Amino acid sequence: MKRIVTKEDYVQSLKDLHHVVYYNGKRVEDITEHPGIRPHIDAAALTYELALRPEYEDLMTATSHLTGRKINRFTHIHQSVDDLIKKVQMLRLIGHETGSCFQRCVGFDALNATYMTSYDIDQKYKTDYFERFKKYLIHVQDSNVMLVGGMTDPKGDRSLAPTKQLDPDLFTHVVERKSDGIIIRGAKAHMTGGVNSHEILIMPTQAMREEDKDYALVCAFPLNTPGVVLIFGRQTNEERKFEEGMDAGNPFGLVGGEALIIFDNVFVPWERVFLCGEHDMAGILVERFATMHRQNYGGCKGGVSDILIGATALAAEYQGTASASHVKEKLAEMIHLAETIYAGSVACSAMGYKTPCGAYYPDPLLANTTKHNVTRHIYEIARLAHDIAGGIIATMPFQGDLESSEVGRYVKKYLAGAKGIPVEARMKILRLIENMSGGTALVESMHGAGSPQRRRSCMEGWEILNRRNAGRKRL
Amino acid sequence: MKRIVTKEDYVQSLKDLHHVVYYNGKRVEDITEHPGIRPHIDAAALTYELALRPEYEDLMTATSHLTGRKINRFTHIHQSVDDLIKKVQMLRLIGHETGSCFQRCVGFDALNATYMTSYDIDQKYKTDYFERFKKYLIHVQDSNVMLVGGMTDPKGDRSLAPTKQLDPDLFTHVVERKSDGIIIRGAKAHMTGGVNSHEILIMPTQAMREEDKDYALVCAFPLNTPGVVLIFGRQTNEERKFEEGMDAGNPFGLVGGEALIIFDNVFVPWERVFLCGEHDMAGILVERFATMHRQNYGGCKGGVSDILIGATALAAEYQGTASASHVKEKLAEMIHLAETIYAGSVACSAMGYKTPCGAYYPDPLLANTTKHNVTRHIYEIARLAHDIAGGIIATMPFQGDLESSEVGRYVKKYLAGAKGIPVEARMKILRLIENMSGGTALVESMHGAGSPQRRRSCMEGWEILNRRNAGRKRL
Amino acid sequence: MKRIVTKEDYVQSLKDLHHVVYYNGKRVEDITEHPGIRPHIDAAALTYELALRPEYEDLMTATSHLTGRKINRFTHIHQSVDDLIKKVQMLRLIGHETGSCFQRCVGFDALNATYMTSYDIDQKYKTDYFERFKKYLIHVQDSNVMLVGGMTDPKGDRSLAPTKQLDPDLFTHVVERKSDGIIIRGAKAHMTGGVNSHEILIMPTQAMREEDKDYALVCAFPLNTPGVVLIFGRQTNEERKFEEGMDAGNPFGLVGGEALIIFDNVFVPWERVFLCGEHDMAGILVERFATMHRQNYGGCKGGVSDILIGATALAAEYQGTASASHVKEKLAEMIHLAETIYAGSVACSAMGYKTPCGAYYPDPLLANTTKHNVTRHIYEIARLAHDIAGGIIATMPFQGDLESSEVGRYVKKYLAGAKGIPVEARMKILRLIENMSGGTALVESMHGAGSPQRRRSCMEGWEILNRRNAGRKRL
Amino acid sequence: MKRIVTKEDYVQSLKDLHHVVYYNGKRVEDITEHPGIRPHIDAAALTYELALRPEYEDLMTATSHLTGRKINRFTHIHQSVDDLIKKVQMLRLIGHETGSCFQRCVGFDALNATYMTSYDIDQKYKTDYFERFKKYLIHVQDSNVMLVGGMTDPKGDRSLAPTKQLDPDLFTHVVERKSDGIIIRGAKAHMTGGVNSHEILIMPTQAMREEDKDYALVCAFPLNTPGVVLIFGRQTNEERKFEEGMDAGNPFGLVGGEALIIFDNVFVPWERVFLCGEHDMAGILVERFATMHRQNYGGCKGGVSDILIGATALAAEYQGTASASHVKEKLAEMIHLAETIYAGSVACSAMGYKTPCGAYYPDPLLANTTKHNVTRHIYEIARLAHDIAGGIIATMPFQGDLESSEVGRYVKKYLAGAKGIPVEARMKILRLIENMSGGTALVESMHGAGSPQRRRSCMEGWEILNRRNAGRKRL
Repeated sequence: MKRIVTKEDYVQSLKDLHHVVYYNGKRVEDITEHPGIRPHIDAAALTYELALRPEYEDLMTATSHLTGRKINRFTHIHQSVDDLIKKVQMLRLIGHETGSCFQRCVGFDALNATYMTSYDIDQKYKTDYFERFKKYLIHVQDSNVMLVGGMTDPKGDRSLAPTKQLDPDLFTHVVERKSDGIIIRGAKAHMTGGVNSHEILIMPTQAMREEDKDYALVCAFPLNTPGVVLIFGRQTNEERKFEEGMDAGNPFGLVGGEALIIFDNVFVPWERVFLCGEHDMAGILVERFATMHRQNYGGCKGGVSDILIGATALAAEYQGTASASHVKEKLAEMIHLAETIYAGSVACSAMGYKTPCGAYYPDPLLANTTKHNVTRHIYEIARLAHDIAGGIIATMPFQGDLESSEVGRYVKKYLAGAKGIPVEARMKILRLIENMSGGTALVESMHGAGSPQRRRSCMEGWEILNRRNAGRKRL
Repeated sequence: MKRIVTKEDYVQSLKDLHHVVYYNGKRVEDITEHPGIRPHIDAAALTYELALRPEYEDLMTATSHLTGRKINRFTHIHQSVDDLIKKVQMLRLIGHETGSCFQRCVGFDALNATYMTSYDIDQKYKTDYFERFKKYLIHVQDSNVMLVGGMTDPKGDRSLAPTKQLDPDLFTHVVERKSDGIIIRGAKAHMTGGVNSHEILIMPTQAMREEDKDYALVCAFPLNTPGVVLIFGRQTNEERKFEEGMDAGNPFGLVGGEALIIFDNVFVPWERVFLCGEHDMAGILVERFATMHRQNYGGCKGGVSDILIGATALAAEYQGTASASHVKEKLAEMIHLAETIYAGSVACSAMGYKTPCGAYYPDPLLANTTKHNVTRHIYEIARLAHDIAGGIIATMPFQGDLESSEVGRYVKKYLAGAKGIPVEARMKILRLIENMSGGTALVESMHGAGSPQRRRSCMEGWEILNRRNAGRKRL
Repeated sequence: MKRIVTKEDYVQSLKDLHHVVYYNGKRVEDITEHPGIRPHIDAAALTYELALRPEYEDLMTATSHLTGRKINRFTHIHQSVDDLIKKVQMLRLIGHETGSCFQRCVGFDALNATYMTSYDIDQKYKTDYFERFKKYLIHVQDSNVMLVGGMTDPKGDRSLAPTKQLDPDLFTHVVERKSDGIIIRGAKAHMTGGVNSHEILIMPTQAMREEDKDYALVCAFPLNTPGVVLIFGRQTNEERKFEEGMDAGNPFGLVGGEALIIFDNVFVPWERVFLCGEHDMAGILVERFATMHRQNYGGCKGGVSDILIGATALAAEYQGTASASHVKEKLAEMIHLAETIYAGSVACSAMGYKTPCGAYYPDPLLANTTKHNVTRHIYEIARLAHDIAGGIIATMPFQGDLESSEVGRYVKKYLAGAKGIPVEARMKILRLIENMSGGTALVESMHGAGSPQRRRSCMEGWEILNRRNAGRKRL
Repeated sequence: MKRIVTKEDYVQSLKDLHHVVYYNGKRVEDITEHPGIRPHIDAAALTYELALRPEYEDLMTATSHLTGRKINRFTHIHQSVDDLIKKVQMLRLIGHETGSCFQRCVGFDALNATYMTSYDIDQKYKTDYFERFKKYLIHVQDSNVMLVGGMTDPKGDRSLAPTKQLDPDLFTHVVERKSDGIIIRGAKAHMTGGVNSHEILIMPTQAMREEDKDYALVCAFPLNTPGVVLIFGRQTNEERKFEEGMDAGNPFGLVGGEALIIFDNVFVPWERVFLCGEHDMAGILVERFATMHRQNYGGCKGGVSDILIGATALAAEYQGTASASHVKEKLAEMIHLAETIYAGSVACSAMGYKTPCGAYYPDPLLANTTKHNVTRHIYEIARLAHDIAGGIIATMPFQGDLESSEVGRYVKKYLAGAKGIPVEARMKILRLIENMSGGTALVESMHGAGSPQRRRSCMEGWEILNRRNAGRKRL
């Protein structure tokens, strides 16, 4: 496969993919021309585009430890604490450009988690997954493809194990083992960047027991493989993307263009299978992926929050409230919250360490802490943005009103703000705030990288025990 | 005017109104047939419909202290503490029916605030506003029209007084005094129930100084008066209202169908003018309206929150998590927060008192406290709803996917939840949660009845002094 | 017994009681002369003293529904919603006088809970507890004694039921039934006003099962009954009460002078036994007592918080920061939090209702909500008090330094604040803040009237179900 | 001066100091024998003792960049990001040992701030402060003395500048310049470790203007210099330190044994003066000291919180509630909060950078964020500790009761917890929790390293502007 270098290469590669994508019940022939999808493509394209800018080379690219070639950092295996920190800085940087999700970190984390775990499986079971995976990794690094990190299964009734579900396919599993590969069935939900990625790297959704071993599965395949069907999820205000203009709020969409991806008897050759039946390793892989994904959230959401804070400061300026002491106080609080989550991402990276396979891994407890703060602080940042921006973000007329020959003059007259500020500028910044502080954007900050309860559970075990013992020493 | 009794009467009266309404830059001929507006009409219609049910008669109706006739409570002047408490109970009741804003309390509060204040102006200035207003009130009670409570001006640059704005019309004002009435110009923003009301009762947006006396103005007129133009505001996911089906989430829309209402040289006869130039009374009226409007929020939002909490409990049940201890804990917290805001509304009513004109008035400090809690707790309730409902509310396929002959079977298969729960039921409840916890709904809880800073300011004056003196006594 | 009317009567009655009280391992002969105990006596004495002031007659006294005689409200059975509201107002009033706990509400609530429940037991079991209790009630009303409300047992290992404890006495129980009465053994912990009350009304600490029926027990007896031993609990900074002067912070002490009360084979005559073995009624009584006790917390803590807020405002004034915008903002937030808890107490009272025995009962869910907010807001009020008052409340020199001939001049010189403020005044107000925002005072707001988990549990049952059903109706 | 190596050396050096210390108005001849002071000495002594343990050598010691000699890290100038991170790890480590403040970081930060700033002054003004300071630094490193970091002035009326105060000494200033040195007058308040340090390094308390240039002053001198008087501050429950036994809660006291230090015409030779009159540099020095001091709080308070969390877990275990889901949830939340503050300290260190003089400096915004979280989370951790530990921490009998021949058996009987747990162990852990979650300990977390408003102000300037500009780019 030809290496994807530029934004144009990336868009063309998606045109050439011919995968089966549905949007609102209808097949999409060319996703790059689809207004509901294109913003997400443009966001992900920045991961290619920014890597070409000299000033960002240090953050956006790395040197492959396998080939020595320069690669996009999103395909790199972390070789140092510095790599872990640069990951976080890169995410904040791109967040500043998009004000939205740029999707590519999920596959990045899937690569690192699988790299570490396939090594460990080989150590324990004398398998050769690690060698297979390194070949796959070189393919990813050289072709620069974008990967879906495929973890979350639909899960049906959450109180039941995979094999206890009414429909065995509610968790993705192997339905047939053949000499040249396996047949899998199931689906992955909430797949960030799903429709505008090239391949998917499937991982189990949770720890698995002996009886669930067919569900213990890691494998990769292109999204145009027969049997793969992608359904784009419905987002907040998504119809606005079909209009041209300001009401969409953010040209890069919101969140990650998540999709439901169905595997209807998909064949995967053995060289792309990296865990198959070693059920005791599933939980370890999940934990590692989750840790590395939680590491990200203070980076990307920190960057995205900077834009929301800045937009809110501008909105205040445009309506003449920027110098009010309570406005400054609230903006300072928003900054405080954004820095708190960023601090978490930096700290778990700085406290990262080398694992047996040589890859570096962030501190799990601190990564967990980071994401837990994100589930709270992003909501509070949005709340403060609403406070400052005013009720107008919920009641502002349509762009169509502004442009109407009949009522446009009223909109211009009555939405005027401070002297010298064009009404269009004010409306645009308010629409951006609306876009960034609304429903879908908040939900993502809650559930990305695992729901609060799963993160909380990590803390309830040995961490409590640990401190209890520290307390006992003081008696 | 014929008395509006039934829901049908109400809808017909709106058809007959022929006021000038714009939606997305286009004139709407019949708002009752417009999918973007109809849900709000249906919500407001419940204020008529429920008043006819015997079981709700006590809450939904009252006896006019002026005529002795039975009237809709939304047109009543509070005659007792019991009236104040019934108001709150009525709001929670209707909130249970709509899960959304039913709009009619704004005009209700405007009536009460004007009643009390016109009396006081007459006492001070020997004017006859109170008599005029009582006649108007009888008209409202007998015809049972729905009123817009018109307080918030566009305000342009918030750091400048009305007369200092670049455009003098950014606050609504009298531009000409004539023998038979006045000509006014300006606009009112965020007008709840704007397009589906019959008349508007305009009030000043803030305290006014001597030089702003043309902006000190209370008057009423029908919305089909020449020069009145209404522009419907754009809401979160509003295009979904145009589709038939589940994706709209709530058949009663969300928030109050707010509109920008423009007064382009509107004539108002003197018998409908209730304050004109007595600038020192403007602040008093604003404070009274605000207090009575803040009183409401634990009632209506308490009721609406009950529905959101119930929907969240169902969503948990549908996906098999209802018995998890953390889910029960979070639902209990949501209830706690909803009851906290309801307690505020009940308390300010129970501590209400009789004013010189005979009308009862809720305790301002407690009403203030209530609304301040609403600006926080509604966000936290939404956050917890997201936590329990799961990422699916941000990534769920379109209704069009569910109904598609090509991918419908996949949606049915992979969105299945607990045994026996139809996929449609699960999707419907998730769409309801999405509707109720999203952008516009949150913003409304922040800014309705005055932004946090205006509420906060009320506390900073004599309340601090008050306690300081209590503290000093202890020295 | 002679009726206790004045503060002096009350103090004398305690001298005459000759009950067995220990303080720091030593028997206290006369508690009224003991500096560690006297502040609590003075606080409780205000419940007698204020009842004699004409301006407080309406709040502090009531008319007995049994005798028609005027009684202290703390011995009254609520006869109306108005009684419930006056209770809350009375508590806030006394809180303003003491800035501390005045202890007498516990017995008040015990009387009401037992009144209602003894009636119900009789209805169910044809017993005559209600008649016995009414006689006891008349004795309490006429003599105006102060009662301990004895609910909380030591409980040993909380994961075990009463009969499963290693020591059967860790819950108070009947050890022998005799013809003229019963012998009981056990203890009650955290007994507010324990040492300066006259009698105790014992109640069970939780719902009881069949096998725990000896632990289902309500009875009353004087604290000088043989076998009763009281041990005064150690409080924050309690040694300062032994010094004369400002460092004690508050002449009325802090919290309720709690005691551990031991029953070492205490005899109780049958006429003072109001539940004995009817185990199914224990949980009902606990719930009722808890509801009525939770009702109080927005009243007393609201009043106490007013003093802390006022003291904090004064401290700011004394050091020149009162006009800073952040100080005013924080004081406003403190007021907001205090009013939020007060609103809860008023609301649960306003929504109170008549029970079968005729007594009025506050709304349990709203009472629960009130106390739950107290467990959070009192801490936040303290935190804000610390913020404004400054680090000086943690590092201020001793009163002994101020009075020292060697270093007194340095203290006077360097603790000077704003012009004209005597150093002593500043130090006094800072010591008051320290007293009111410290350890014991906070813990009381957490655990009085039941720990958060017990309150939370009340919400998790039918309240969730209730809302779930409301949600379902919207499908 | 002989190098202080062991704990014994340290104690002896304090005996030898013969400085003028007052406690409760009385001169203390030997502070090492004084029960009110000794716990703080023992805490600080650990900074000597742990440095001798091989396993902590890497964290507790460093190599002087001036002399190449091994030194205690508390006297080191940070030479790398790794040094910054080790500082934080060292603080958490010692926090685990003391569960309290060990005081020595203040002088540490004062050394680093002065090092950096004296270099900058010389660059700007061609002075020789840096050379003087390096000599002083070598003295500190070699003698291993403990320094007070003297920043906070009494400040009188906070709304007035130093020269506008009624008493010019309310800010410390130069009163006379002589050929061999200067005479200073004033005081420093809240001086952590004040009485058990050897020397003080005085810094200005805020930015200074031209007219305040006599208040722009950095200098160092021993605490036994004539004219220096130290007054020990009164702490929560400090009398308990005079008893022998468990009621004191923590053998290392609580917070830092803060003192008011008075300079009554103290002579300081020029070689110990490091800034004198260069008023424009005062604000820079304050900001640097504050940043480095804020950096600490997630380290020391993180470590201290670990002990409180552990003690709380033990208390739950001792009373049979450790396996309750809400207890585990709350312990997990406490851990989350402790890790959040620790993450801040690590992150500001990891993002630290080299300054012109060669010393490394943590990221100011992240350091600020860290301390701001401490002002909230330590209170919440205390609140949760109270929740789990129970009301008993506010009402537990005295140790004197436990040991009493008369009532000791009752205390033992009724404070029994889970099987096999000695009552003494339970009481001890409860007293430790009481000690760590009470008044003074909380206040310290609020005001150490600057009050919230001063930290907040740092964010309100260019940080808002910064983000506003980022937001504008998106238009």
